Amino acid sequence: MSSPLDPIAMQTISFADLTDLLRRIFLRHGTSAEVAAVLAENCASAERDGSHSHGIFRIKGYLASLAAGWVDGQAVPKVEDVAAGFVRVDANGGFAQPAMQAAKVLLIEKVRAAGIAILAIRNSHHFGALWPDVEPFAQEGLVALSVVNSMTCVVPHQAHKPLFGTNPIAFAAPRAGGQPIVFDMATSAMAHGDVQIAAREGRMLPPGMGVDSAGLPTVDPKAILNAGALLPFGGHKGSALSMMVELLCAAVCGGNFSFEFDMSSKPGAQTPWTGQTIIVIDPDKGRGQAFAQRSEELVRQMHGVGQQRMPGDRRYKQREKSLSEGIVLTEEDMTRLQRLTQA
Amino acid sequence: MSSPLDPIAMQTISFADLTDLLRRIFLRHGTSAEVAAVLAENCASAERDGSHSHGIFRIKGYLASLAAGWVDGQAVPKVEDVAAGFVRVDANGGFAQPAMQAAKVLLIEKVRAAGIAILAIRNSHHFGALWPDVEPFAQEGLVALSVVNSMTCVVPHQAHKPLFGTNPIAFAAPRAGGQPIVFDMATSAMAHGDVQIAAREGRMLPPGMGVDSAGLPTVDPKAILNAGALLPFGGHKGSALSMMVELLCAAVCGGNFSFEFDMSSKPGAQTPWTGQTIIVIDPDKGRGQAFAQRSEELVRQMHGVGQQRMPGDRRYKQREKSLSEGIVLTEEDMTRLQRLTQA
Repeated sequence: MSSPLDPIAMQTISFADLTDLLRRIFLRHGTSAEVAAVLAENCASAERDGSHSHGIFRIKGYLASLAAGWVDGQAVPKVEDVAAGFVRVDANGGFAQPAMQAAKVLLIEKVRAAGIAILAIRNSHHFGALWPDVEPFAQEGLVALSVVNSMTCVVPHQAHKPLFGTNPIAFAAPRAGGQPIVFDMATSAMAHGDVQIAAREGRMLPPGMGVDSAGLPTVDPKAILNAGALLPFGGHKGSALSMMVELLCAAVCGGNFSFEFDMSSKPGAQTPWTGQTIIVIDPDKGRGQAFAQRSEELVRQMHGVGQQRMPGDRRYKQREKSLSEGIVLTEEDMTRLQRLTQA
Repeated sequence: MSSPLDPIAMQTISFADLTDLLRRIFLRHGTSAEVAAVLAENCASAERDGSHSHGIFRIKGYLASLAAGWVDGQAVPKVEDVAAGFVRVDANGGFAQPAMQAAKVLLIEKVRAAGIAILAIRNSHHFGALWPDVEPFAQEGLVALSVVNSMTCVVPHQAHKPLFGTNPIAFAAPRAGGQPIVFDMATSAMAHGDVQIAAREGRMLPPGMGVDSAGLPTVDPKAILNAGALLPFGGHKGSALSMMVELLCAAVCGGNFSFEFDMSSKPGAQTPWTGQTIIVIDPDKGRGQAFAQRSEELVRQMHGVGQQRMPGDRRYKQREKSLSEGIVLTEEDMTRLQRLTQA
């Protein structure tokens, strides 16, 4: 093992090569070709864009969940055309992203025809970042909002025990003069993956992120992970939004609430078995004007009052760098990933 | 004028009588009968439910805006049936609530048929609470989400000048065992009406609510109102949500952004001239199960972990009290309102 004082040896890999490497890992660990392709692109995109908490860091959890028989890597999603604006998918115990992929063409057809449509995914596992689910819609000129509930680790405002998941909200909108405006925010004070990374790196957290097993405030990520819990962001408002995510994903989609599944009988299982909602709007039906010109004006004004960085900008900047210079991984990670294609 | 040490004389009035009193005030000040009825019910409901910042406190602002010729109290909204899930309304410079009322039957028809529908209102003034716009949908078994942008008074995260409005988000969902779950939150750290009330009552605010005219943090509501500004709630997350509200209301609906209208040439004008979006979902299309049973289970679990009060509960409790005992107003307010029916 290297000492903390040794320089860490790094390697670069292209986005295409990382995607292919991850695809082979998923295939080797029991997913279908379709599922491997979707998860590999999702995970490589996160690594490429600097979303490290949802990049290759997640591979271990994916594979452990597959090995435990907790998530079905071969699941074939069942898509149902319910109404002019409503598509529902039973992911059949598989991952959420392939379920979305299976319904996407139908969903976009409905959005173009009806002006708005909702995709309600249930019986699904979402273990990735949420922005990759919405950004592609904005690339096609549509506005998308997605929410996914996860697993109990957040204490509702003024409650004394965790109940909600980190329950992220992601939003994407096109703009005329640049890449789409995209945000992806946990409704918890911090994303769970970031707490895990801080624990691994031995960093303390800012105050207000979570509580320990006794329900007392703590800045130690290990205390949060070890029978402690996160708090919602923004007090009662973030808590209400987290509740809304539970209602939209579990109650609308027919998925589990964050507190309704028990993976304790499947050692190694980590992926939340819940639901996901995606609402997509054709914004040019609003008034027959170009939405993207209007959103560009908002961006111009936000820059004008001093907001340097738009939501999504940091990812786009890192993406550009990764695409021109390659994605930088430690040699240790690279070796680990390569080994995982074999066993 | 009474001294602060005098007991304040109070009177009670029934909800029906307050609604009628406010209706006569609006009529006397130049609105159509339809507009008077809608605004009176909205405003009396807020007062009845203890939402004082959007109750009779707002009458002065409504009337000043009407007198200034800034908002058209006689406007007839133009409803357009755009697609299977899309209704748009040009409020023609009138209030947003009558515009919503004019489109509501069509909107609900679309929701029942398509599973989801969006109402995009533009060229509208919204000066009321937002929860009365969503709660009625939940009373009919539907899930509703509404956003409305307002007027520049919130500094985007890490910017140095205000740009966004208080831009509230309201959500309503039915539940089997009680009144709907309803929240209505400004994406600013505090609602503008609550800052005005604190200023009037001479109370200081908690830290983190706003900045003074120099952009420095302040707890003085007067400093915020006097060329200062509010902050978003929850840092960059609340700021991103506020931006989303601008995009959904102005860019989707074809309304003004919060910074795009100038009422300085109309002394007394106070109502924001923007847009409003309402998205309504038929939640029982998600899996053929009863949504309200599932939301009831979430409420039960939230109570189980110690969350005593559900979003909306405080309003329902006050509503019940007001309906049985009457709405309590000061004699001064009552006299003022009665005078306003005359002049």
